Amino acid sequence: MSFLPKTIEKLIETFQKLPGIGPKTAGRLTFYLLHMPQEALDNFSRNIADLKKTVVYCSICSNIAETDPCSICDDITRDIKTVCVVENPIEILSIEKTGKYKGVYHVLHGAINPLNNIGPDELKIEQLLKRISSGNIREIILATNLNMEGEATAMYIKREILNIKSKNENLNGISITRLAHGLPVGADLEYADEVTLSHALEGRREF
Amino acid sequence: MSFLPKTIEKLIETFQKLPGIGPKTAGRLTFYLLHMPQEALDNFSRNIADLKKTVVYCSICSNIAETDPCSICDDITRDIKTVCVVENPIEILSIEKTGKYKGVYHVLHGAINPLNNIGPDELKIEQLLKRISSGNIREIILATNLNMEGEATAMYIKREILNIKSKNENLNGISITRLAHGLPVGADLEYADEVTLSHALEGRREF
Repeated sequence: MSFLPKTIEKLIETFQKLPGIGPKTAGRLTFYLLHMPQEALDNFSRNIADLKKTVVYCSICSNIAETDPCSICDDITRDIKTVCVVENPIEILSIEKTGKYKGVYHVLHGAINPLNNIGPDELKIEQLLKRISSGNIREIILATNLNMEGEATAMYIKREILNIKSKNENLNGISITRLAHGLPVGADLEYADEVTLSHALEGRREF
Repeated sequence: MSFLPKTIEKLIETFQKLPGIGPKTAGRLTFYLLHMPQEALDNFSRNIADLKKTVVYCSICSNIAETDPCSICDDITRDIKTVCVVENPIEILSIEKTGKYKGVYHVLHGAINPLNNIGPDELKIEQLLKRISSGNIREIILATNLNMEGEATAMYIKREILNIKSKNENLNGISITRLAHGLPVGADLEYADEVTLSHALEGRREF
């Protein structure tokens, strides 16, 4: 590919480092940008350089935000007694889009993953437990992902919460829940995998 | 999504404008970049801003390049008597990767598309015809895409070449070819569409 201008090669290489972008897509994106006016490129360039400059972490929920506390923790209309624990800020985006959740969040910034050397200390679990110890919380929704790491993290956090509950009578009222697992909307029973189907059976409800 | 920091929202919006990137991917890319060190972001940012700054168009083949003539036109080991006509520079990338082509190129920068107001005058067809008129060319490979626009462009160029050939005896030796159309490697006859299959039949060769 040495016949390409260096600036183009460099951008293709950079795009390739992003998740889900292979050499073909990287090339397509770069050549697409070549057709954009310089002004748009300058804007794009500035957006990337400034990305982290105004971003802080909320000292309550560890979410990324522009202010501390973040706009969700600072919102008096939200129910601060219900805390939804997620692995990453992007998952808050998905939950907020449903418009069904009025509680607050706690971002772990990852999941326990021994293979990648990520233990409980690398996550914001200590902060979560402190938040719980302070009282005032009624429900912890463990919304980590439904994979090995997410399940392990949920189990670890549950054990830790039960642990501090056993030492502090004021925390007895806290319930620990997990998002319902089952068939997604539009799913066809025939094609559902067995794990999903067992979850759907176990979690069946009065109709 | 108003709870997101503005810099993040802006970058998600920018990513969404790129081809093949929807809201989910745009979010994923942006949150991925959040984890990158500022230095890497600055590099990425600079790559985008500088993308077009050192890029020129080759005055011979209209390819994007750092020098004029481009490194391909300037390469004395290449066969300048064979010209492969492509719609866009990115297609040169694909052909170069095969390592099978030793000729030179001509980039049209698009295809005839009446619906988008792109006629022959918007493309580098005039330059191609001039290049042919100068003599010295033995074969023109029309490597435009195998869709309506690409086919129309190939047909138009073929007619124009025949037209200048009829006026200039020196050009009689020029042959006009088109890339072979047929079944791709690994294709299953059962799943091939009928157009591809007809092309494969029409283009069958002695085995």
